[in-house]
Amino acid sequence: MSEVTTLPPIVAAIRESRRALARLLTRIENRAAAAELTALYPFGGKAHLIGVTGAPGTGKSSLVNAMAKAYRAEGKTVSILAVDPTSPFSGGAVLGDRIRMRDLHGDAGVFIRSMATRGNLGGIARTTLDMIRALDAADFDIVLIETVGAGQSEVEIASAAQTVIVVEAPGLGDDVQAIKAGILEIADILVVNKADNPGVESTLRALRAALDLGHRAERIMHHGKLMTIPAAPVVGEDSAWQTPIVQTVATDGTGVPELLAKIAEHRTYLRESGVQRLRERASLSAEIEERLRDLLLARLIEQIGAARLQATIERVVERQIDPNSAAQALLTESRGAAEP
Amino acid sequence: MSEVTTLPPIVAAIRESRRALARLLTRIENRAAAAELTALYPFGGKAHLIGVTGAPGTGKSSLVNAMAKAYRAEGKTVSILAVDPTSPFSGGAVLGDRIRMRDLHGDAGVFIRSMATRGNLGGIARTTLDMIRALDAADFDIVLIETVGAGQSEVEIASAAQTVIVVEAPGLGDDVQAIKAGILEIADILVVNKADNPGVESTLRALRAALDLGHRAERIMHHGKLMTIPAAPVVGEDSAWQTPIVQTVATDGTGVPELLAKIAEHRTYLRESGVQRLRERASLSAEIEERLRDLLLARLIEQIGAARLQATIERVVERQIDPNSAAQALLTESRGAAEP
Repeated sequence: MSEVTTLPPIVAAIRESRRALARLLTRIENRAAAAELTALYPFGGKAHLIGVTGAPGTGKSSLVNAMAKAYRAEGKTVSILAVDPTSPFSGGAVLGDRIRMRDLHGDAGVFIRSMATRGNLGGIARTTLDMIRALDAADFDIVLIETVGAGQSEVEIASAAQTVIVVEAPGLGDDVQAIKAGILEIADILVVNKADNPGVESTLRALRAALDLGHRAERIMHHGKLMTIPAAPVVGEDSAWQTPIVQTVATDGTGVPELLAKIAEHRTYLRESGVQRLRERASLSAEIEERLRDLLLARLIEQIGAARLQATIERVVERQIDPNSAAQALLTESRGAAEP
Repeated sequence: MSEVTTLPPIVAAIRESRRALARLLTRIENRAAAAELTALYPFGGKAHLIGVTGAPGTGKSSLVNAMAKAYRAEGKTVSILAVDPTSPFSGGAVLGDRIRMRDLHGDAGVFIRSMATRGNLGGIARTTLDMIRALDAADFDIVLIETVGAGQSEVEIASAAQTVIVVEAPGLGDDVQAIKAGILEIADILVVNKADNPGVESTLRALRAALDLGHRAERIMHHGKLMTIPAAPVVGEDSAWQTPIVQTVATDGTGVPELLAKIAEHRTYLRESGVQRLRERASLSAEIEERLRDLLLARLIEQIGAARLQATIERVVERQIDPNSAAQALLTESRGAAEP
């Protein structure tokens, strides 16, 4: 959006006050910030959104901290959104957050928010998207989105980023956790952290072999599921992005400047190749369709009544009608109900 | 459905001919079997649907084979549906299938089908559900659904089963893979396979600790996502199911009879407690809603036109309007378009 002289109150507030930003993020988590999200949306688009994902034990959180410090040293403002969509059995988010706070506390150029999702996987991806938009509009240069790379939801969340970093480490039992979890193909940059540990060579070999085997695929969200589409058309074959492997030791900062350089390079690639715009359009398109699905179902239930829906479900439970025919019948009914 | 004397042709065909069944499953995979699925749905509901999931390396496929052989020894007919929703980087399904075929080949009471999904995660869960319904209507006593327990989709697929078995094994690097992947809470029965390997005690300890920590939660699908709901009401606390841990050595059959006994016990529990009916209703309800969402979106696009949808997406890409407001506007428009 061009030349805006007066900011909407919510945008001014979150840019001025960290407390206002924290409160807005809570309202977004509670799904009670539609008006604010509408007001702030035109003021985003400037931050670089960086997703960092990987299995527990890879030192992912330490790496995110080291990246935040390195960006601060460059004078950039940084926000960190840590999403932990793990089961109620584990509770890593809170501890990681505390360590992080101690490390980066007192720096006004850093903002940290964590989101523990406690087993309710529905809707995390959308809430995360909305939170990222708030951080973007709050004018941070860098938004780091940290997730545990264990499942589909985490992959979806990481995919909300422009640059996706998948973190590995030697000595985790399996050579390459990412291959198993199927997250290698979403990596724009691969990091082997704890690169001073034994076994780093075998991890590097396994990753290189996997990268040679696989072909990069563009990723989009479709009906709330991750889909892969053939690599986006680029100007020439030479300009296609080759996923680099960067070695780091997050605890002492080794390799972090190289990582930041690769991230900057990737951002330039995204913009110059037109891939960023293609990805944005595909993911916004999927999001709008998903929102429409929700609104349409809510309207249908209002039209036919919840009792009618329940009665139909009961007939399916009784095997009098199959699920597909039931859905078709309800659709026809709603059309009748909508007519005057 | 009560007292049906004449079977619909498709049901008669898949009960008589394995080739007809295989062809139907292919049509289901190609989403070209709506009429057949409608016809066969009333004739299902008799098979015991057993999901088996676990990380690669746990010997899951060998266990499924051993279970199939044990069920055959009891005179029961068995079908195996192996779903491999892994990335294009790995290709385990085909090999596992070949080994399996050699082992169980020539037994007319066993039917095996594998489904390699090659990166396209959208819609696998629904296709799998439909395939299970076909196998159920084909009158198998047992339907074994085998998945790799790596992500959300696999958890969804396993959840289509009545009894879910999560397989672990000692010596995989991490003590308990399931805790990491967040699939422990969907287990009705935990199996430690390769129980003759060193490290089995530490695996058992880790599993018992995790079971003590966590509380069982009922699982349902909601908007295509897995949700957990508080444990279903049962007659008394005593009747609630306590997830047992069974040790097996699939390669020589050790522990398999004990596993089958636990599975039978779980089936009795599901029926007598009423939990089975609650789960079925919840999952059918989620499926019908999901199907309605798809139908409603298709109808809306027909009403407003694909070009109109594209133009709105473009405005969102340009940050002139936010995704939620865009969806609301399209909904209002479709209402106008539907009116005469």
